[in-house]
Amino acid sequence: VRKAITSGQITDEVDAVVQPKRQVRADALRNEDAVLEAAKAIFVTAGVEAPVREIAARAGVGLGTLYRRFPKRSDLVAAVFRREVDGCAAEATALATQLPPGEALATWLRRYMQFIATKRGLAAALHSGDPAYNSLPDYFQANFVPALKSLLDKAVADGKVRPGIVPYDLLRAIGNLSAASGEDGLEHSQRMVDLLIDGLKFGAAATAEKTTA
Amino acid sequence: VRKAITSGQITDEVDAVVQPKRQVRADALRNEDAVLEAAKAIFVTAGVEAPVREIAARAGVGLGTLYRRFPKRSDLVAAVFRREVDGCAAEATALATQLPPGEALATWLRRYMQFIATKRGLAAALHSGDPAYNSLPDYFQANFVPALKSLLDKAVADGKVRPGIVPYDLLRAIGNLSAASGEDGLEHSQRMVDLLIDGLKFGAAATAEKTTA
Repeated sequence: VRKAITSGQITDEVDAVVQPKRQVRADALRNEDAVLEAAKAIFVTAGVEAPVREIAARAGVGLGTLYRRFPKRSDLVAAVFRREVDGCAAEATALATQLPPGEALATWLRRYMQFIATKRGLAAALHSGDPAYNSLPDYFQANFVPALKSLLDKAVADGKVRPGIVPYDLLRAIGNLSAASGEDGLEHSQRMVDLLIDGLKFGAAATAEKTTA
Repeated sequence: VRKAITSGQITDEVDAVVQPKRQVRADALRNEDAVLEAAKAIFVTAGVEAPVREIAARAGVGLGTLYRRFPKRSDLVAAVFRREVDGCAAEATALATQLPPGEALATWLRRYMQFIATKRGLAAALHSGDPAYNSLPDYFQANFVPALKSLLDKAVADGKVRPGIVPYDLLRAIGNLSAASGEDGLEHSQRMVDLLIDGLKFGAAATAEKTTA
């Protein structure tokens, strides 16, 4: 008993179903973003074990809304982490449009070091074995490796950095250098990341010298 | 009831007491060295919890002799560590006489990285809180900082490295870079230490360019 329908009817029917869904989806995204922003701020001051009630209150959403989207605390922690990875990776694109290639690379590597240095507490949670965190290392690499590769390629093309540097090698080195403890740990890490950046430039200078000699 | 004695008498009496002691001391040193050499080799293959009996057997000394000198396992572990620090620091002096300043510095930094990379198991023991290990961080710094400073100063004087590098900064950075895990961890650490070394040279090259310009 199927009825012949015109394409106009289909469109109307689809609209009737999709339109409210879009609205719901927009609200949900707005709520989700508010929760993630609130959670990020509260995790920094109170750690990733901070009361979920506080996060919901700060975000201006009900506790039910928060739990519907993030049933477990680890879901929320993982989402905050992914959002911050997105933000840091996006900065690579922004810097590439604002600075000369060599400076964009150096600035982003320092920014990345800050990112890592402020994630020490989170890193401990990530190694807890909770399945919500399983995909994060891949997410991390899938975003940061292309971001850094793009900056490196531009700096190499501009003659500011030697070719042949493996992006993941640098990310890993900065991660290890950021593990410096003590009250001067961050300043030490910054100096040593700057020294690594100089190392990247050294090869380029040598190549340039050879070329002009 | 004190008797007047001549200086010749004193000398004879001192000799009579000291001579056998010297012999005992020489034997003790030889035994100690054999024990430390054996312990070092056995710790590498079997870890620092290896049976003391095996160490004594390999050193060719009695178990009593070993325990008299090293009452606790931690005394033995600490002594092996100090001896290896001595050896690695002494290589700095040797390299300075064999290679040009820049190469001596680079070679020793790579050697130091190997030293650290092979001490991961030992490092865990050192952080166990055993009082026998309390003095080791100081011993480590008291030997390595002057060893590296001497190599750095010579390389700076030779125009191969920029001035102003803090030796302890470099030791610390190499320590952190050596923490890379995974089966390619050592190769990764080597590449990144080489990049740091290039960073040291970069500043010098820039200075040299400015000077000659």
